[in-house]
Amino acid sequence: MKKKFKKVNASILIIGNEILSGRTQDLNVSFITNWLNEKCGISVGEVRIIPDVEKIIVKNILDFSKRFKYVFTTGGIGPTHDDITAKSISKALKLKYQYHPEAYSLLENYYGKNKFNQGRKKMAKMPKGSSLIYNPSSTAPGFKIKNIFCLPGVPTILKSMIDNCTEYLKKGSVILSKSINLHTVESNISLELEDIQKKYLKKIDIGSYPFFRMGKIGVSIVLRSSDKIKINSCKEDIEKMVKDKNIKIFKN
Amino acid sequence: MKKKFKKVNASILIIGNEILSGRTQDLNVSFITNWLNEKCGISVGEVRIIPDVEKIIVKNILDFSKRFKYVFTTGGIGPTHDDITAKSISKALKLKYQYHPEAYSLLENYYGKNKFNQGRKKMAKMPKGSSLIYNPSSTAPGFKIKNIFCLPGVPTILKSMIDNCTEYLKKGSVILSKSINLHTVESNISLELEDIQKKYLKKIDIGSYPFFRMGKIGVSIVLRSSDKIKINSCKEDIEKMVKDKNIKIFKN
Repeated sequence: MKKKFKKVNASILIIGNEILSGRTQDLNVSFITNWLNEKCGISVGEVRIIPDVEKIIVKNILDFSKRFKYVFTTGGIGPTHDDITAKSISKALKLKYQYHPEAYSLLENYYGKNKFNQGRKKMAKMPKGSSLIYNPSSTAPGFKIKNIFCLPGVPTILKSMIDNCTEYLKKGSVILSKSINLHTVESNISLELEDIQKKYLKKIDIGSYPFFRMGKIGVSIVLRSSDKIKINSCKEDIEKMVKDKNIKIFKN
Repeated sequence: MKKKFKKVNASILIIGNEILSGRTQDLNVSFITNWLNEKCGISVGEVRIIPDVEKIIVKNILDFSKRFKYVFTTGGIGPTHDDITAKSISKALKLKYQYHPEAYSLLENYYGKNKFNQGRKKMAKMPKGSSLIYNPSSTAPGFKIKNIFCLPGVPTILKSMIDNCTEYLKKGSVILSKSINLHTVESNISLELEDIQKKYLKKIDIGSYPFFRMGKIGVSIVLRSSDKIKINSCKEDIEKMVKDKNIKIFKN
């Protein structure tokens, strides 16, 4: 019987002028991507970094939510004027932008009635029908609406709450990855690698990445696939090529 | 006389499965964005990270090159099978994908005739009519065609060659940035900040970013604009608000 591999994809929308201005180095893309790959067998097909502008958020949410099984957004769910993600998503989905009762009471308990000001209340507003993504760091929850998951931009807070997305996700087959690091340059193996890629077309994704390590240059060959048997066979083909060409393997 | 500020924008297309798989942390977005802001007065309006797939590259190149004054791409201009940026851009622009004579001879000199194999020759192929972006690190040049600048994915190499883009760029007014770091939380100042943003609407971009530093929490208020007078006046308004609310300024 032929084994079926279940492919599930997602996209990430990084919302924030601070990333586009170069002021802040994004760390969320690699974190979310690794988490989706390793924990959920979900691969990321596209990432966009966009400014805090309503019509741009609306346009991208509509595009991504149609094209991908899941959409993850980061940023713009705090209390200040530039936090417009929840409002923009409500608009995109034509849903009312309103207080979520549970979010409201979580935040009211956290701040205390006297200190629960307008800005803090804003963090309880989201598209009607949202489910909460709980936040153990700073209470203000993220939310899930349709296939869209809205998380905060601060990496430490995002990390603390991402596992709370799991219950809403259908998992795919885990994507396996194997690396072989070689004492060579890409242009020395490019033809052979192309032939091997052709042999495993659409089964294995073979990437080739030059690196500099301990004063030496090398190439990292990375194989990615959900198919354990094929990935092992592809690795053997590469090891044979490496031996035939008398290339040394880089010890880590 | 009213001073005119010249706005010039750009977009960045990060091409590479290694970023989308989470294997590699992207460092090029913040580097290019800062370089464009500080050296050229060019602001980045959108970034996309896409896989090494021809039809996806073609679609995004066509979209970005229409919507932005300049497009910067990184990745996919090396010698291996997964390096398809130059070929895909040729296709997008309906230009012949061919050897650039100068790139060919630069690479032939670098490797020597005997070692100038097929993979290495590939790095001299680009859309017809391209201008070279010289590469002092590893010779293989980037290229500029129409409003598109193609750079490699390896950050150290990219950094070494980006200044060679300058001759092709029309500069904009330099975007000034001022930061004020406060001992407070966002939700304590969100209403006041919103009023100040309204006063400077479309003149100053006010961002608010929580941070954790030396065990203390704070908020960084960032003002960005090309207008020096307005940015100073906005900063004074924020300092007044801070004083009125008895908030301490964070000493760095």
